[in-house]
Amino acid sequence: MLTLIGLGIYDEGDISMKGIEAIKMSDEVFCELYTSPWQGDLKILEKVTRKKIELLERSDLEENSKKIIELAKEKDVAVLVSGDPLVATTHSALVIDAKKEGIDVRIIHASSIFSAIAECGLQIYKFGRTTTIAFPRENYFPESPYRVLRENLEKGLHTLFLLDVDFENRRYMTVKQAIELMLEMESRTGDGSFTEETACVGVARVGSPDRVIAYGTAKELKEAERVDFGASPHALVVPGKLHFSEEEYLGFLKIPKQNNK
Amino acid sequence: MLTLIGLGIYDEGDISMKGIEAIKMSDEVFCELYTSPWQGDLKILEKVTRKKIELLERSDLEENSKKIIELAKEKDVAVLVSGDPLVATTHSALVIDAKKEGIDVRIIHASSIFSAIAECGLQIYKFGRTTTIAFPRENYFPESPYRVLRENLEKGLHTLFLLDVDFENRRYMTVKQAIELMLEMESRTGDGSFTEETACVGVARVGSPDRVIAYGTAKELKEAERVDFGASPHALVVPGKLHFSEEEYLGFLKIPKQNNK
Repeated sequence: MLTLIGLGIYDEGDISMKGIEAIKMSDEVFCELYTSPWQGDLKILEKVTRKKIELLERSDLEENSKKIIELAKEKDVAVLVSGDPLVATTHSALVIDAKKEGIDVRIIHASSIFSAIAECGLQIYKFGRTTTIAFPRENYFPESPYRVLRENLEKGLHTLFLLDVDFENRRYMTVKQAIELMLEMESRTGDGSFTEETACVGVARVGSPDRVIAYGTAKELKEAERVDFGASPHALVVPGKLHFSEEEYLGFLKIPKQNNK
Repeated sequence: MLTLIGLGIYDEGDISMKGIEAIKMSDEVFCELYTSPWQGDLKILEKVTRKKIELLERSDLEENSKKIIELAKEKDVAVLVSGDPLVATTHSALVIDAKKEGIDVRIIHASSIFSAIAECGLQIYKFGRTTTIAFPRENYFPESPYRVLRENLEKGLHTLFLLDVDFENRRYMTVKQAIELMLEMESRTGDGSFTEETACVGVARVGSPDRVIAYGTAKELKEAERVDFGASPHALVVPGKLHFSEEEYLGFLKIPKQNNK
């Protein structure tokens, strides 16, 4: 059997009780954290579960997948992944490979930014499609986030922007960088959907006690002295049409007032 | 301090380790489960945490809210809610009330259908807005789910339909009922966005070992003998444009083949 276990949104405390029990019951435990901004300590999970956890390297992802599938034919194999499993397409592919071999697959869910973003005070039912802002590379400057924003705004919907992780160079995109990139898209092909006056919510370390959630214009949020988002992971939200209760909640997150601690 | 703690998607095993610790550290622990299809046993959580958990009744929600806010001024108060906190607008309102009084608020996240739905094999990034299908009542037959579906399909996006809970009468909407209601909307004001031939994914008890996830036409899914979804909670998904890897995954969920156990 193959069990995919979500580690949850921030650190080793975000795994579920069920996840801990499933690790304890497994014969072999692997962990795949490549491209993930998870901030936990696997050693603590090893101590709690008394199991050795083998960290998988991205470099041999295909090899790893084969190894896991072979092992899961005979043994109970657990694979730990950050957030909620299957949000990353890599892990869907592993499930497909297992199903092809007739291996039982179980998914143990955990917290994810997809619902945790409701902590910024916007109703989860009013979010449109989610998109990711990627670091530009040579001859590569994807503008799809701008198009997704425009589509959502046309329907009055909120947009969650996930921010790129460049794991090889240990670069995690910040709220400020995301805003600069959106402004660059605006200047290239925009129609006014994202300007310095656009109201935004910047979030950092959701799920941690020292999270920062700040509401202001794009210009306000990107000016370092106004708000310090601190360490990764960050995410950005552009609200659509606001309900009065959403406005009231956002009022508590306005900079330069104290953040919602 | 007020701590909102997510119980997660299915039962008492879906709370996070952090959630358990937070209950242990609290002076008073309440639980609000009204309108929630959570299937867990609070007694087990009481045993694990050695805390008394007081179940709140909806009938005095406003009273309860006042009581909690008053207590949280002096003590560490925890409120347990199903899924990920703040997905329900009720709990956002409680946070706003606490912030107005200057009370520190902490959110402990947990699994939610909003990301767990990826278990049906569809990429979470390709979902549009989520909507809820409500039980019709006298002179009340909301057709907004149909409009949301149409908007999402126009963009090639998938749609997650959450299904109504009529807690007073202990009625939980089933996949079959949801499909009948969507077909009724189609016949009233539809344009062909949802017919008996529409491909759907019906899901039941996501997060539980005996979950059912089945892919077929609306007609196939609503015919009881073809697939038995069993006990609540259920949800319905209508896929938009499919990536080939999504098609491959859905192939494993096709009825009347064995469901993905």
